[in-house]
Amino acid sequence: MSIIDKDKYFTNLPRDFYRCEERYRREIDVIYGRQWIYVAHISEFPEKGDYRACELPGGESVIVVRSADGDIKAFFNVCRHRGFSLCEPGAGKAKLFVCPYHKWTYDLNGGLRGAPSMPNGKYFDYADHGLKPVHIEIWRGFIFVSSASEVPEELGPRLDKITPEFAQLETEHLKVVHHKVYEIETNWKFLLENYLECYHCSAVHANSLCVPMDLPAIFSDVIDSIEVNEVAPMWIPLKSDSKSLSMDGEFVSSKLLGEFGRGVTPPGGFGAGFMIMPAVTGALFQSDYGVVHRIDPVSPTRTLLHNWWFVHEDAVEGVDYDFDNLIAVWEKTNPEDAYILERQQRGVQSRGFTPGPHDMRVEASMRAGLELYLQMMGDE
Amino acid sequence: MSIIDKDKYFTNLPRDFYRCEERYRREIDVIYGRQWIYVAHISEFPEKGDYRACELPGGESVIVVRSADGDIKAFFNVCRHRGFSLCEPGAGKAKLFVCPYHKWTYDLNGGLRGAPSMPNGKYFDYADHGLKPVHIEIWRGFIFVSSASEVPEELGPRLDKITPEFAQLETEHLKVVHHKVYEIETNWKFLLENYLECYHCSAVHANSLCVPMDLPAIFSDVIDSIEVNEVAPMWIPLKSDSKSLSMDGEFVSSKLLGEFGRGVTPPGGFGAGFMIMPAVTGALFQSDYGVVHRIDPVSPTRTLLHNWWFVHEDAVEGVDYDFDNLIAVWEKTNPEDAYILERQQRGVQSRGFTPGPHDMRVEASMRAGLELYLQMMGDE
Amino acid sequence: MSIIDKDKYFTNLPRDFYRCEERYRREIDVIYGRQWIYVAHISEFPEKGDYRACELPGGESVIVVRSADGDIKAFFNVCRHRGFSLCEPGAGKAKLFVCPYHKWTYDLNGGLRGAPSMPNGKYFDYADHGLKPVHIEIWRGFIFVSSASEVPEELGPRLDKITPEFAQLETEHLKVVHHKVYEIETNWKFLLENYLECYHCSAVHANSLCVPMDLPAIFSDVIDSIEVNEVAPMWIPLKSDSKSLSMDGEFVSSKLLGEFGRGVTPPGGFGAGFMIMPAVTGALFQSDYGVVHRIDPVSPTRTLLHNWWFVHEDAVEGVDYDFDNLIAVWEKTNPEDAYILERQQRGVQSRGFTPGPHDMRVEASMRAGLELYLQMMGDE
Repeated sequence: MSIIDKDKYFTNLPRDFYRCEERYRREIDVIYGRQWIYVAHISEFPEKGDYRACELPGGESVIVVRSADGDIKAFFNVCRHRGFSLCEPGAGKAKLFVCPYHKWTYDLNGGLRGAPSMPNGKYFDYADHGLKPVHIEIWRGFIFVSSASEVPEELGPRLDKITPEFAQLETEHLKVVHHKVYEIETNWKFLLENYLECYHCSAVHANSLCVPMDLPAIFSDVIDSIEVNEVAPMWIPLKSDSKSLSMDGEFVSSKLLGEFGRGVTPPGGFGAGFMIMPAVTGALFQSDYGVVHRIDPVSPTRTLLHNWWFVHEDAVEGVDYDFDNLIAVWEKTNPEDAYILERQQRGVQSRGFTPGPHDMRVEASMRAGLELYLQMMGDE
Repeated sequence: MSIIDKDKYFTNLPRDFYRCEERYRREIDVIYGRQWIYVAHISEFPEKGDYRACELPGGESVIVVRSADGDIKAFFNVCRHRGFSLCEPGAGKAKLFVCPYHKWTYDLNGGLRGAPSMPNGKYFDYADHGLKPVHIEIWRGFIFVSSASEVPEELGPRLDKITPEFAQLETEHLKVVHHKVYEIETNWKFLLENYLECYHCSAVHANSLCVPMDLPAIFSDVIDSIEVNEVAPMWIPLKSDSKSLSMDGEFVSSKLLGEFGRGVTPPGGFGAGFMIMPAVTGALFQSDYGVVHRIDPVSPTRTLLHNWWFVHEDAVEGVDYDFDNLIAVWEKTNPEDAYILERQQRGVQSRGFTPGPHDMRVEASMRAGLELYLQMMGDE
Repeated sequence: MSIIDKDKYFTNLPRDFYRCEERYRREIDVIYGRQWIYVAHISEFPEKGDYRACELPGGESVIVVRSADGDIKAFFNVCRHRGFSLCEPGAGKAKLFVCPYHKWTYDLNGGLRGAPSMPNGKYFDYADHGLKPVHIEIWRGFIFVSSASEVPEELGPRLDKITPEFAQLETEHLKVVHHKVYEIETNWKFLLENYLECYHCSAVHANSLCVPMDLPAIFSDVIDSIEVNEVAPMWIPLKSDSKSLSMDGEFVSSKLLGEFGRGVTPPGGFGAGFMIMPAVTGALFQSDYGVVHRIDPVSPTRTLLHNWWFVHEDAVEGVDYDFDNLIAVWEKTNPEDAYILERQQRGVQSRGFTPGPHDMRVEASMRAGLELYLQMMGDE
């Protein structure tokens, strides 16, 4: 029995778990340094040389690039000479990566091509000093990386098993419409916990997420025992009169995804998605659009919430979708969570805080997430 | 003999005492976590449900409320479910306290009345999960709380003994006119030391506090040995031609306090007050108005100075007192101290700092305060 | 062999050396607390009582003053009573130093002259409580101080040996035209390393420093083995058609320095200078003007770069030199380095960073600087 398990209920974690600097550093290493983390979608790299420098938790940075071979590769964004951050954060197009500090030059496969005054073999072999690769896995268009030393267990088979609907959605054929980052003064695990239960939805999201969502359906799906898995299914069921997760229940994009765009009618209340945890990457799709969330710790009391919005790769803004309408539900829901979680952080500072009782049914997923966290951290 | 005692004089504390993070955390625990701290006045809670969420040092927060029973109670401002900070800082009126996160609901006595999906007794007993009480003591209208596990020694008898004048002032019948918080980049113990000596007054407060104050009288009162007590008398004697602590020596409020408002003539140079330390709460009253100060550490090098101004509960602004005139002396005095103490903090950063000689007579109270600090911290 | 030495090359330091708080504090103590640090020029103190309060790394502050004896002295900027920072940063003129807190008064030789209520000999002897002296050495007009307990090895003989040109320049007869401080979000050792190699100059300073500088000449001077000394020669050779380190290669001040102002023709490409390290003070002079640089750590990831500009003491602005023209090269060069070094700091945060290979020839001085650092820190 772990520290969160009581006789008839479970609790969240002790106070110091949410504010200790040393624990935070260990989390970055043990959790964020080992798991697969979502970074980008293949549609962002149509041609050779298209790249993106992606910032990850713990001050990490990774270059994702359509390589000379035509496949997508990932490298640490670090020059092998003096440790320079090779590319500024954001997207670009390159033939070579040239370090601005001393002009060391790398090709699109990461190979070192030139180091002024130090010809290949004179002091060292160029072959040993290419950009360091980062593990990469692409599943149905979504690109994940891991900066672990050992490659983590393959994601694809696990995701295929729990979310067969993504084959229908053909998520290789998406495009990113918007990416927003919310800064939240809270411990990242409060976002994890919040993400794992909809017990708060009626109080916090009454005028946003709950408008199109079938809240009772979420709880009816919950079972008493939820498996403790790094990869879990997750979806938002729609009310019977809602076609999409939108403020008016209508589709936000008229170009439906995958086979639904070819005449197949989406099942009633259709939603599909998955979650990777405890380092959170969450994907939530309806038949016309979807979002990916990612939670990045910055310090014990500061966290970034990423939100990417996707539509069909052929959808045209102003014709097939209205931008403001597309982002409306999450653009209202995310700040509601941010406000709540900052106040929770303040409360947990108190010496009057003791982890309280949680419902094994309506908060069951949260227990699974915390158990997994404790296992990975070696805390039980 | 403690580390501050030398042959013929005493010193302040070693350099690291004023800048060490670990010591700061222990001070919050051992000193601020154990002593009585002033939070509010009973006049702020005239009716059932009137409450105030008060922020205390160390990120602590406490709800003070006129309860369903009619008395004033205090609770940790923390929901028993997920640790949410139940009330935003400030005053309000409530029938129930409802947590915005999952709608757990508490009554004005702190009792848990409802937890959605978790009926009383199903997983746990509501009786065990009411808001956690905080120790509270009310003395002559002033409300003190302590978040200690054991209730600290009663304040009332100790304060009655050292400040019988407060019976004359009838401080139950005050009202709060103003509350201001000054942010100062200095260690909190420099405020403590500064508060405990008027050796600096002629240099720093020549055009503020010293205008109405009889400075020589302060030193004539000082004796060679001052007792080391948590609760001590403290007052500001007035010059013979001053009626109050005001810039022109005149009363700032025409509605005099207590029996002075009923025709009793204040003694010449009247002043009364007390100080609780080392976690400073200080009260300084004349016959027409008074102030309470409180010193809140925020970090080893950052401190908040609270100042509350009080007049008779029936005094009317614009008729009995002028607001700007009322606050003028302290509104000028406090920033003078803030400036001085920020420069002192900078000086003590130097490796050239060694604690210097202090006068056993004119700085005697300071020695008592530091001795008490060292005793509580177990440093001698 | 130290941790930076490999078979055929050397590297920079491991990742944690550039971000660890504990190491930073030890560096302040062991390096910045022991070495000579440049603070001012004698021309800033023409008359008795002229003083400057100088802020040094680690929150240190020192008063440099033309004393009652007529010589220049240095004291910790700390009142011996309560540790007050006696003088605000910057220059002034004083007959006595009076502490604003309690009016303790010191003369220009640092002697305590008065402490209100505590006459000399009553509790302590004034003679024991003068301002604490700081080691001072003046070499050819440049004033260096050290807050070490033991006086460091004399600078003058060492500087005379490596930079005899300063006798020609007669640097006692300079004046300070400008002092600028750049805030850079990087570890101070990246500035040290950057200062010690010109391998980056062609990429980073193509349109600033490299315009008048003879870059190949720098590398032709480099030898394979550079001595590891605290004091080292350093100069910027000019292109054959450049007279000074200016954007157009012309003199920036028509009043040439020292004997060059009296008709002696400067040698072709003339430059002279020295560097004290690892706590960097660097001086770079041409025949018409010069600069002094100083690098002040503020935290493991924050550093200040000081730049002072000097011309002949008789040069007149608008007549002999144009201010904007005078500062142009370094005012363009310094921000280029700042930008680069902030990106390097970001790169080295990555777990993908490993110290890379450096050229024993073109980066040789950097090896010497890092070796000296490791020796002083006791890391090898």
